[in-house]
Amino acid sequence: MLDVKFNIRQVARTLSLVENRRPESHAILRAAYKAGRHVPVIGVTGPPGAGKSTLLDRLALHWAEQGEQVAVIAIDPSSPYTGGAVLGDRFRMDRASAHPRVFVRSLSSRGHVGGLSRAVQDVVVVMAAQGFERILVETVGSGQADVEVATLADCVIVVSVPGLGDQIQAGKAGILEIGDVYAVNKSDLPGAGTFAAFLEANLDLIYPGRPGVNQGGQRAGQERAYANAVLHRRHGNAGTDESFWRPPVVSVCALQGDSTEALCRVVEGFLSWQRATGRDGSRRAERFQDHIRRLASGRLLAQPLPAGAGPSLPQLADAVAQGEMTPWEAAEIFLDALSEAWLRREGTVADPVARSAED
Amino acid sequence: MLDVKFNIRQVARTLSLVENRRPESHAILRAAYKAGRHVPVIGVTGPPGAGKSTLLDRLALHWAEQGEQVAVIAIDPSSPYTGGAVLGDRFRMDRASAHPRVFVRSLSSRGHVGGLSRAVQDVVVVMAAQGFERILVETVGSGQADVEVATLADCVIVVSVPGLGDQIQAGKAGILEIGDVYAVNKSDLPGAGTFAAFLEANLDLIYPGRPGVNQGGQRAGQERAYANAVLHRRHGNAGTDESFWRPPVVSVCALQGDSTEALCRVVEGFLSWQRATGRDGSRRAERFQDHIRRLASGRLLAQPLPAGAGPSLPQLADAVAQGEMTPWEAAEIFLDALSEAWLRREGTVADPVARSAED
Repeated sequence: MLDVKFNIRQVARTLSLVENRRPESHAILRAAYKAGRHVPVIGVTGPPGAGKSTLLDRLALHWAEQGEQVAVIAIDPSSPYTGGAVLGDRFRMDRASAHPRVFVRSLSSRGHVGGLSRAVQDVVVVMAAQGFERILVETVGSGQADVEVATLADCVIVVSVPGLGDQIQAGKAGILEIGDVYAVNKSDLPGAGTFAAFLEANLDLIYPGRPGVNQGGQRAGQERAYANAVLHRRHGNAGTDESFWRPPVVSVCALQGDSTEALCRVVEGFLSWQRATGRDGSRRAERFQDHIRRLASGRLLAQPLPAGAGPSLPQLADAVAQGEMTPWEAAEIFLDALSEAWLRREGTVADPVARSAED
Repeated sequence: MLDVKFNIRQVARTLSLVENRRPESHAILRAAYKAGRHVPVIGVTGPPGAGKSTLLDRLALHWAEQGEQVAVIAIDPSSPYTGGAVLGDRFRMDRASAHPRVFVRSLSSRGHVGGLSRAVQDVVVVMAAQGFERILVETVGSGQADVEVATLADCVIVVSVPGLGDQIQAGKAGILEIGDVYAVNKSDLPGAGTFAAFLEANLDLIYPGRPGVNQGGQRAGQERAYANAVLHRRHGNAGTDESFWRPPVVSVCALQGDSTEALCRVVEGFLSWQRATGRDGSRRAERFQDHIRRLASGRLLAQPLPAGAGPSLPQLADAVAQGEMTPWEAAEIFLDALSEAWLRREGTVADPVARSAED
């Protein structure tokens, strides 16, 4: 563990070095990874307007009041945290972030095309090494970012609200398959009960095999199989003898704080179940595998090609645009050159600060 | 050009083969890429609730009524098109999609982690080869998906609406840097004029160098530089003699159809400017380069490793989780093995149907 524990200015400075890939970040990252410290990472996702920030505030406060050192990472571009970040005021204070045991950090999603989850993974590991005991990650609810947060977190809370047609659609279209826990926020709004029941019914379609429940035959085969494989790996298979987790739907009102404590207990329940079944380790292993694959891919694509190593990427792209070559033929030629160059590279010191093609 | 032109059932079937990577898709994709036909691709993005689908409907109808064959690709998980797709009814009809010259296709964003833009790129090329004359792509407004749509489209329309705090934040946090044209929808709502002025003022910060305008010094240096580089490449640099494009803000009311024709003319104006400055070709080249890079990366990561080629990815991930190795050390070992295996692979026939690691 680094010795900067809870000197907030020092923590902020360390994270800036890591985020900006300063030379000093090499040693910081190395020490953090070697510390091998794992703390619960809770992802909070959902559409803009679902009240994620307010809910996050409640959750962070809850755990802080239990005595934990809590870190919040905001990567949702519509978040007041992140929105503030872009305009220059990196920290916007509200209840939780004013608590001495809560530290809020915003990360911009730009400048990280394809590499955002890698940046978040690094920040999570550095925060854990610095002694934070729980890390909350807020992200926007849209296809790819959702999948990424699901990969990064030990528990994903999907937040939705009643009464917004688009958001019901969003629920249908994907986020029902990444949550470990579902929160219906603004439960004082009309239609909240109906909406929660709607979520439950949709979860029944996705978690077939629950006694007396429809087998979800409506869904297209390929998507069905994909979803099932992911869910069985995460939550077990109700059709077998093994212990399984059927994500609960919790109605809360974050603004008033109604039932947010109950939500925290459900999250703790999920984390306990996950630990008891050994799935915490496999989920973490999945996360590190993804991270290594992304790093490998980024490093390869950033490999400089020596002159005469064949056509350059712009030349290949031009050939594709002219219809002279298909993209996968171009990719093979490109990959041949990259692989050769990689194996013949000079120097073997792995440098985490080297900018990769994904940055 | 393929001979399936505007036999809608045949078009739909062809696209299904491509999307599902059926064996037949090899020949279809090859023929489509070799056709080398380029038609304008218009991306429409913005937060859920901004009325993207309604606006898209108007735009598609406009061009269809001008006699064009228009294709619409919906990849926004909150879209009624895509929402419908996931529940099984792939086509939800409304005004535009009922027009004989408009064809709507929804693409799920799941099952394509990291590979969605590749899938869309393939579909766009196949649609162009089939004779469609304009392709509209609808996506949700969130960081990464936005950047992807910007890469795929020849013109990006960013749609927003007045009165939603979150969406103002979303505007601040990134989408102001990917649009070629900005549409303020629901311009009959109170505050619409103020909101449009707010957008204009923010664009003034982002497009410095316009006479009499703030240089945008508030923004963090790294993000500023990143944004400037991308914008100068796309829109030229106001600080120099070259012709440049300052994205206009167009107020529309898609539901009533107010000013949607004007929006179409602005889009045409942008496309003309882009052609006249040769930027259409460089934008397309950028797109194909990204595509080749993604394919190369996916193929490499999918390369099977022979037994004895060193530690496996799960073993490397475990070593990282235990703190025995940093992820970038693991990535180097993994990449050595992958590159060796790639160069020694058997068979050289490029197969676009082969599943890559990004699927």
